[in-house]
Amino acid sequence: MTIRIGIMGYGNLGRGIENAIHDNPDMQLQAVFTRRNPDNVKIRTAGVPVVEAKDIEKWTDKIDVLVLAGGSATDLPKQTPRYAEMFNVIDTFDTHANIPQHFAEVDEAARANGKAAMISVGWDPGLFSLARLFGNCILPNGSDYTFWGKGVSQGHSDAIRRINGVKNAKQYTCPVESAITAVRNGENPVLTTRQKHTRECYVVLEEGADAAYVENQIKTMPNYFDEYDTTVHFISEEEFNRNHQGLAHGGFVFRSGTTGVNGEHNHVMEFNLKLDSNPEFTAHVVLAYARAVARLAAEKSFGCKTVFDIAPAYLSPLSGEELRKKML
Amino acid sequence: MTIRIGIMGYGNLGRGIENAIHDNPDMQLQAVFTRRNPDNVKIRTAGVPVVEAKDIEKWTDKIDVLVLAGGSATDLPKQTPRYAEMFNVIDTFDTHANIPQHFAEVDEAARANGKAAMISVGWDPGLFSLARLFGNCILPNGSDYTFWGKGVSQGHSDAIRRINGVKNAKQYTCPVESAITAVRNGENPVLTTRQKHTRECYVVLEEGADAAYVENQIKTMPNYFDEYDTTVHFISEEEFNRNHQGLAHGGFVFRSGTTGVNGEHNHVMEFNLKLDSNPEFTAHVVLAYARAVARLAAEKSFGCKTVFDIAPAYLSPLSGEELRKKML
Repeated sequence: MTIRIGIMGYGNLGRGIENAIHDNPDMQLQAVFTRRNPDNVKIRTAGVPVVEAKDIEKWTDKIDVLVLAGGSATDLPKQTPRYAEMFNVIDTFDTHANIPQHFAEVDEAARANGKAAMISVGWDPGLFSLARLFGNCILPNGSDYTFWGKGVSQGHSDAIRRINGVKNAKQYTCPVESAITAVRNGENPVLTTRQKHTRECYVVLEEGADAAYVENQIKTMPNYFDEYDTTVHFISEEEFNRNHQGLAHGGFVFRSGTTGVNGEHNHVMEFNLKLDSNPEFTAHVVLAYARAVARLAAEKSFGCKTVFDIAPAYLSPLSGEELRKKML
Repeated sequence: MTIRIGIMGYGNLGRGIENAIHDNPDMQLQAVFTRRNPDNVKIRTAGVPVVEAKDIEKWTDKIDVLVLAGGSATDLPKQTPRYAEMFNVIDTFDTHANIPQHFAEVDEAARANGKAAMISVGWDPGLFSLARLFGNCILPNGSDYTFWGKGVSQGHSDAIRRINGVKNAKQYTCPVESAITAVRNGENPVLTTRQKHTRECYVVLEEGADAAYVENQIKTMPNYFDEYDTTVHFISEEEFNRNHQGLAHGGFVFRSGTTGVNGEHNHVMEFNLKLDSNPEFTAHVVLAYARAVARLAAEKSFGCKTVFDIAPAYLSPLSGEELRKKML
């Protein structure tokens, strides 16, 4: 069975989804939907239409799973519940605090209309959530550690760009290597915010801007920077464009816990990712779960689910028998 | 709901299961079954009976999940299908090549008798199998790497003990650090058997035995040692008893794969374990999945399953709502 995929939104993630479809022979791109003028959206895949978002209702019987590739701030809270009335859907909603509400809205829309839906698929939330769940269930007596990076934080980069005199900025979140080593060695350290991550900022100033003022504004910014060791590098626009366009990211999830009559044995479970392209990797996670969404829909298992609810076999094109033989 | 656990077999794994029950407040040990004389089996938990294996049929309505804590060579191939006729069961069957046959036998027994069953639960097979499955589904264009250790290989230790003149022996499988580093850095190395693991042997000789002969017999032993860089240490019985009773183990599963129009982006997914006690950690994995078995039975989802078939939420005592709020 070929799974027919639609993509809503054609930014970094949407392009990543398109590329990922080329890596999955059981999937096929049917259409890309955009709120822009379709004539201005050039896609990679020959022969696939780019369609105005407002015409999406004509595609309900041509798409098995619609991937919502918009942002969590304003796009997905509206789009996912709305399109779950017409399509089986999957999104990458990552505003942790609002997940319960988003889940409830998507679940209601999907159930009422006989659709399968998944939210918050990716690596965090997503694979990292699974690592936390396995860690907590297997080692009930233990501690969780999550480190992110090295990678760009969009929110922190935006916060710097709002400072007077800043033309452009990129902020990298970096895990502290010595902290990772201590956790990996089972030392169960108690770590402050400052001891877990550092923040590296690359800033292009407006002409005539006051560097000392900008640096101080960054380093003392509440919530974003004041609890971290922050380094600010002022660079030229040319250097910025040459060296800071990358989308690499990654991170580490640890569960360190004890077992035994007196908790005398320590165990460390570690899951880590080292990604050259955050949106392309995220897209590949989403597509593996889109396969699960198609199966749930075929089984009439309607409503909203998360990675916690999906049996891993549903991610694979192989049969249970093949999986047991090759991968168990 | 309290999950009532029975344990069949009281070796290292059985003791680990008993200890793990103390770490899981929603579980309770009902009985330990043994083929030995119960009077000679002392267990940790006060007030819990040790019962002769032949009397197990009297316990069918008192146990929610029976954990089969025997060995894969001779115990489990007989025990798991047999007890799946009477109980919901879970085992750690780890003879990879025989998994399809074992699965079929347990599945038939469980289905015919309305029981839920899981086989091959632990870390390899088990958590490492899941890491392989996720890696292959998310990065279809890529390579798998598994490293084991540092930890004792029972099979290799046994093979050494069969050599003339050997009184006792322990063999540690050690991953080659430089190979792990190369994989972790996304270099996608092609690795021979010799380049992935070394073998460290600690041997106590019988009085008057020929050390050179023993060392040569070990290093040239087909399949077990001839393709590896092997180091043999001859030690005293006293040193052996003092330093080589540990049950530590661990390992690493990597998926390294590419994405993008021309596969220009590389990604590395890593899952690793560092375990002070192999049987105690395995026991904790088994108990988390025993929780899933109890739920499957309650849902009347009968027959045999593996870790591939279980939605991760089933491992947790928390509700879906709590999990989404706390761990997603």
